[in-house]
Amino acid sequence: MFDSGVGGLTVLRAIHERLPSESTVYLGDTARVPYGPKSPETVLRYAREASRFLVAQDVKAIVVACNTATAHARRVLSEEIDVPVIGVVDPGAQAAVAATKTGMIGVIGTRGTIESGTYERAILRVRRDAEVFSVACPLFVSLAEEGWVDGPIAQLTAQEYLTPLIEKEIDTLLLGCTHYPLLAPLIGRVAGLGVTLVDSASATAAETGSQLDRAGLNSTATSPPERRYFVTDDEARFTELAEGFLGAPARVVDRAVLDDESSD
Amino acid sequence: MFDSGVGGLTVLRAIHERLPSESTVYLGDTARVPYGPKSPETVLRYAREASRFLVAQDVKAIVVACNTATAHARRVLSEEIDVPVIGVVDPGAQAAVAATKTGMIGVIGTRGTIESGTYERAILRVRRDAEVFSVACPLFVSLAEEGWVDGPIAQLTAQEYLTPLIEKEIDTLLLGCTHYPLLAPLIGRVAGLGVTLVDSASATAAETGSQLDRAGLNSTATSPPERRYFVTDDEARFTELAEGFLGAPARVVDRAVLDDESSD
Repeated sequence: MFDSGVGGLTVLRAIHERLPSESTVYLGDTARVPYGPKSPETVLRYAREASRFLVAQDVKAIVVACNTATAHARRVLSEEIDVPVIGVVDPGAQAAVAATKTGMIGVIGTRGTIESGTYERAILRVRRDAEVFSVACPLFVSLAEEGWVDGPIAQLTAQEYLTPLIEKEIDTLLLGCTHYPLLAPLIGRVAGLGVTLVDSASATAAETGSQLDRAGLNSTATSPPERRYFVTDDEARFTELAEGFLGAPARVVDRAVLDDESSD
Repeated sequence: MFDSGVGGLTVLRAIHERLPSESTVYLGDTARVPYGPKSPETVLRYAREASRFLVAQDVKAIVVACNTATAHARRVLSEEIDVPVIGVVDPGAQAAVAATKTGMIGVIGTRGTIESGTYERAILRVRRDAEVFSVACPLFVSLAEEGWVDGPIAQLTAQEYLTPLIEKEIDTLLLGCTHYPLLAPLIGRVAGLGVTLVDSASATAAETGSQLDRAGLNSTATSPPERRYFVTDDEARFTELAEGFLGAPARVVDRAVLDDESSD
């Protein structure tokens, strides 16, 4: 699994819960986080480098645990790489369609994810008559990383971002960024009781399980699974933030070098 | 001049005002913004790549218009590069010492700048008995880029970050991040009348003028100065944000490729 930073750990947590006997390798591209504001071609380049690193670790499937990278790179990676490549967008979109009664779905994410329109297209592929309303919420990432997931600042920020969606009378809100589960209790309160929150993490874990089943790749190991963590920068900061996202400590194994540093 | 993104345009604006006949080349490393949370060695690598790009543009001096890059790279760049390399830290520190009466100085910046302790050391070099109190304010960058520079969210965030400094009874507050001048009116209101705000931009412009004078490098051109802008990613977003920071529109000339992309 790779992500631009720590956010993907919310997806990894769901995978650990659902597929407890699978070993995992997590790569956080913390030297180049965030991917959200970057252009599609730059994000594709980063995603290719991350995938190459994971393939070299001998993984049997790759989870793109980053909404921006899924939007800009999952399809291309699927064509280029021999193992299954699972993104967070389609599982999230399917879960949102399964949850909605009225077909009025809100989507929130980073600027990059929202501007790409990927979630909207993915939802409309599953349910053609859905109405999708999208809002970019860039401050949510900073709030999650600062640990300000409650209190008046987070509350006002959520109201500012979500009011246009509430006014559209959505009945389902898809958290289209892996950082947002940390803010889910607050987002749920602001969105109100009539709105079902859907996040991609558990849907992606389920999809990963199905794909491993279909390919006959499930773990048959009897030894306990390994859980390895790599980052491209600042192990200390990653470790500090990780527990909040993963629900357990993550000990970084090593620093991964992704881009070609021969120019130094 | 280079910066991790758009923030350095507040420094460029000060240079355009103070040295109006000088031509400028601005490089915003928008593909890898922000530098703040990245490690010293990664920031140094990025700064070297940016400087190499500017030297190839035939510049006669380089302004490192990014506090994080100044903290981690200015000294090394000065030794490696033949033209003067001016950072934002020493001019800012000198301006803060000139402004304080009590010697109680607050410094705010990104996590990277604050944790490096660079401003604190720079201030203590100029005034050994100063007392420096530092706070990292990561949300301020998001607020500035979102344009939320006033209103209750910005107000509460500023109170949250600045209250510990106000309680120390600082009389001077150094804005140690190039994004923060956009929030200066709000920061000034929250800090109160007894606190003088100092930002590095105009101090850095003055220092650049002095260094050009000393080296006999001032422009003697009679043609109007050129102002060129390069980014490493997302020209559209840069152009959209630029006017708020620069006080004038910035038209991007081209995309700069900094890291070695031969691995694609």
